[in-house]
Amino acid sequence: MITRDECRACDADDPLASLRQEFLLGEDEIYLDGNSLGPVSRGAQRCLDDVVEVQWARGLVRSWNNAGWMDAPLRLGDRIARLIGAHEGEVLVADTLTFLLAKLIGGALELRPDRHVIITDAVNFHSDLYIVAAMARTAGREILVKTIDRDDLDDHLDEDVALVMLTHVDFRTGEMLDMSRITGRVHEAGALMLWDLAHSAGAVPLDMTDSGVDFAAGCGYKYLNGGPGAPAFMYVAPRWHGVLRNPLPGWLGHARPFEFEPEYDSAPGMRAYVTSSPSILALSALDGALDVWDRVTMSQVRAKSLALTDLFISLVEESMPGIFEVVTPREHQRRGSQVALRHRDGYGIIQALIERGVIGDFRAPDICRFGFTPLYLRFVDVYDAVSILSEVIATSAHLDERFAQRLSVT
Amino acid sequence: MITRDECRACDADDPLASLRQEFLLGEDEIYLDGNSLGPVSRGAQRCLDDVVEVQWARGLVRSWNNAGWMDAPLRLGDRIARLIGAHEGEVLVADTLTFLLAKLIGGALELRPDRHVIITDAVNFHSDLYIVAAMARTAGREILVKTIDRDDLDDHLDEDVALVMLTHVDFRTGEMLDMSRITGRVHEAGALMLWDLAHSAGAVPLDMTDSGVDFAAGCGYKYLNGGPGAPAFMYVAPRWHGVLRNPLPGWLGHARPFEFEPEYDSAPGMRAYVTSSPSILALSALDGALDVWDRVTMSQVRAKSLALTDLFISLVEESMPGIFEVVTPREHQRRGSQVALRHRDGYGIIQALIERGVIGDFRAPDICRFGFTPLYLRFVDVYDAVSILSEVIATSAHLDERFAQRLSVT
Repeated sequence: MITRDECRACDADDPLASLRQEFLLGEDEIYLDGNSLGPVSRGAQRCLDDVVEVQWARGLVRSWNNAGWMDAPLRLGDRIARLIGAHEGEVLVADTLTFLLAKLIGGALELRPDRHVIITDAVNFHSDLYIVAAMARTAGREILVKTIDRDDLDDHLDEDVALVMLTHVDFRTGEMLDMSRITGRVHEAGALMLWDLAHSAGAVPLDMTDSGVDFAAGCGYKYLNGGPGAPAFMYVAPRWHGVLRNPLPGWLGHARPFEFEPEYDSAPGMRAYVTSSPSILALSALDGALDVWDRVTMSQVRAKSLALTDLFISLVEESMPGIFEVVTPREHQRRGSQVALRHRDGYGIIQALIERGVIGDFRAPDICRFGFTPLYLRFVDVYDAVSILSEVIATSAHLDERFAQRLSVT
Repeated sequence: MITRDECRACDADDPLASLRQEFLLGEDEIYLDGNSLGPVSRGAQRCLDDVVEVQWARGLVRSWNNAGWMDAPLRLGDRIARLIGAHEGEVLVADTLTFLLAKLIGGALELRPDRHVIITDAVNFHSDLYIVAAMARTAGREILVKTIDRDDLDDHLDEDVALVMLTHVDFRTGEMLDMSRITGRVHEAGALMLWDLAHSAGAVPLDMTDSGVDFAAGCGYKYLNGGPGAPAFMYVAPRWHGVLRNPLPGWLGHARPFEFEPEYDSAPGMRAYVTSSPSILALSALDGALDVWDRVTMSQVRAKSLALTDLFISLVEESMPGIFEVVTPREHQRRGSQVALRHRDGYGIIQALIERGVIGDFRAPDICRFGFTPLYLRFVDVYDAVSILSEVIATSAHLDERFAQRLSVT
């Protein structure tokens, strides 16, 4: 079994090690929940201070033009484009993920007027399921939402399918889907493909262009560290610009917003999908948080992510054999940047870990979820996290009685 | 004509005078655009710093529960309720104004399934016109949006009308409508009433309850000083709680969001209209900006607002007779908290004013718009603004040639 010293040696060799100092993290805290909420970065603080104390305080309303607030959703989109394999002018930052999905689903259904089925994953994130059902109701024709086992997708792809919407990395299990293969199959069936990148952006290499993706959306507060409730982003393939309509239009998506025209006339390009301005404070935190990404490549991030998750899985299995079911795939090409461990007392285990400074989270009914974020996590953090998890399992002191009883019979 | 010294005397007697120090405003700048973007308050700064440096930096993901982030949309709603004459549990802060209007329009149309007309104002804010048209398209039945002259509203109210949507204070002219009378007439016709309070909240006294309003929404970045692109708020009369459906649902509006249920089951009360979390940074700035409202009553604010706008109108007319058409109504009960002056060279005039430190704005085609915000404006500011406006009119040096030519023949 790998030793703590060997982990320290890995950290010493880690080309990303110095980036940890860009984040405000306590020395003793092991943060394995950056897949839920990324931490504060010095870049986010810096940008936010500048927006409040200079742009808003001194520039006041003039900053909409003078400080570039009006263009911020597109400018930030261009910064994120680089991380998801898209080009400039193909990504927009705005709203929240659910609203962006609403725009993409509503718009996409109009592009396949002769088809009446949307396919999604029965275990998709529930907010995705709610919004797809809601948009199906308002499509102006009968739409059937089929929530399937995603492994059976090929069986469901026929000439009735208008749109397939899948989440690229499963929020519970951390399983990553084959974006290129699935998108290709969906296109062969004449349908459109929408990917939810919530657990992918900043976590795994992505290539919207090469994968042939039609539409995608993701969020800014997980691996991108944009802050709680940060604005989301959306991608529209250039072939759909000027074609995909925004079903939730607003004045800032108008071709001439300051002409105050009573009829909506969509702006060209991604600006068409702006409804109203997201919070400039929120955008600025995300903007600053993106600075650190200019210093890394996604292949560096991916290499470290796989090393961290490999290490975690092997330490868990070696130190606590038979205690957990490792739900996350072992094959690298099917793994995101998190590890999910199944245990029926997962809730109590996570609470006990948090009390000891190891922050993971629990996803009902039985998943202990740990995110591995290469920008600020150290190999030694993984080692220590597993040591503490072993202590929790070995001693039931911090667990509830039901859990303690169960441990005693395991 | 009132003198500068008399204005200084008004300031000395002003019970709200001390509040100006709660805002970050340059001593020499006269900010008459708080109806577009309110300035930075010390409260907003304080709350934002606390959220970033303590709640986000140290609490990390735990702050969703420990710092009350999850309840912030409802907690802030309760703070705004007080300013609009609503009760606790009737107001929600979330998203942006356009999305909240979308939810209310979409939901309201379902409540009048036998009616097929929406009435709105032909000169309503254009984003309102775009979203009402968009929601009409997706109602699942043929809906006619009638954009009328609001003075003719009574002529259009018949048994076909499902919903009337009006903006309470006209964004161009500053005219305030009679909320109680209009709401009453709309109800007599069996229709529902939705008010846009963008230029009303924090500007004029409002009473959702007494006025019998069904639905309302407004924004956080104007008179409430919540920051650029601040989250918006919505009001739903308690008789519609549990009845009005959210047509854009998300997981945070689910009765049990952490049960991850595939079927949407709406939370009770206003939480039903939460889709996803707005930016917590944005919410915190608005939260802090609301602190100053705890130290005033809306009747104090209204009294000073009318005094400031009366002063501005009389100074403009006395010092520059015949130059401007005062578009804003002179009757107090029909005036919001802004003054609109019509001039065909309005654009050039506003630019010249801004160069001289008087910040107003221009609304096409010919409106010079000045907002009067009692929390931080002084009577002497109004005096000085008009003096500078007189200088601009008297000297054409800073105006474009076309404007200069016109002035020479005036």
